Amino acid sequence: MYEVELKVRAGHEAVRQRLSSLGAEDAGTVRQIDTYYDAPHRDFAETDEALRIRREEGEDGSTTRVTYKGPLVEAESKSRREIETGVDDADDLDSILDALGFSPAAVVEKERERYVLDDYTVTLDSIADLGEFVEVEHEALESDLESTREGAADRLRDLGLDPDEQIRTSYLGLLLDSSQ
Amino acid sequence: MYEVELKVRAGHEAVRQRLSSLGAEDAGTVRQIDTYYDAPHRDFAETDEALRIRREEGEDGSTTRVTYKGPLVEAESKSRREIETGVDDADDLDSILDALGFSPAAVVEKERERYVLDDYTVTLDSIADLGEFVEVEHEALESDLESTREGAADRLRDLGLDPDEQIRTSYLGLLLDSSQ
Repeated sequence: MYEVELKVRAGHEAVRQRLSSLGAEDAGTVRQIDTYYDAPHRDFAETDEALRIRREEGEDGSTTRVTYKGPLVEAESKSRREIETGVDDADDLDSILDALGFSPAAVVEKERERYVLDDYTVTLDSIADLGEFVEVEHEALESDLESTREGAADRLRDLGLDPDEQIRTSYLGLLLDSSQ
Repeated sequence: MYEVELKVRAGHEAVRQRLSSLGAEDAGTVRQIDTYYDAPHRDFAETDEALRIRREEGEDGSTTRVTYKGPLVEAESKSRREIETGVDDADDLDSILDALGFSPAAVVEKERERYVLDDYTVTLDSIADLGEFVEVEHEALESDLESTREGAADRLRDLGLDPDEQIRTSYLGLLLDSSQ
């Protein structure tokens, strides 16, 4: 399964109004603290991979997930292979990774306000030290990548946003760029 | 926290009778399938570390845990640093490890019948392709390693077993030895 994502920089207030008038379903707000790791045996910046522990706090309590992201398979929509599973204890997994030689490289803190619009997830992201963004996401099989990407672009247009302004750099990448 | 373990090869029937007459508490039986991984950047056989995914089925359903074991800190009692956390999906974690370059090296299948005796865990292990063993375990702080080891040896004697017959090789090691 692949994750198709289109992201633009946009103030949230106008987008919230469009979501409301389009009848989007409010899917709640969560706070995420993402820790990205460096590997001992590969340069993830070079191989275009990522390993992340995500601590998430929402209305239903807190959860931790570990995610591997593979290299881009389709640059246009930023599609990657993602493998993810829940873990009981973020600190214990951090200690295991540390013992294996993986080390925390960067932390991204987000508040994410989620909506569902025509089966796509629309997320209003407020990123610490970066500002406000809107992201449209959908899972896709490899054979559906192109049509799913077009659907995501249509949802952005419905929200008054321009898919041509897509930011392909991840929040992690933007943060690393802004700190240089 | 360290794990102190003393293990001997022993038929289970006589030990079950001693446990019963000593008033040990039956803590249930579980089936475990352990997969050990090779690392892409270190030879765990040389560094004396291990990375394991354990799938466990018991009366309360099935669980998965991931465990890192560090090198021996005290050879006598086989004490190691262990870091462990539960994970939601064994197959997803296996895929993440695979993507990172870790590969399954060996599988150990056990049936483990557990008892609690004087706060120590006594486990009657039936290991596929190896036979029957009895293991006495207890967690210990680094400062308590020696006294905890002595307590474990006393429990073995109470069960009619000889701590001097301790097997220091792991089930994984015994299986690898027997397959050579």
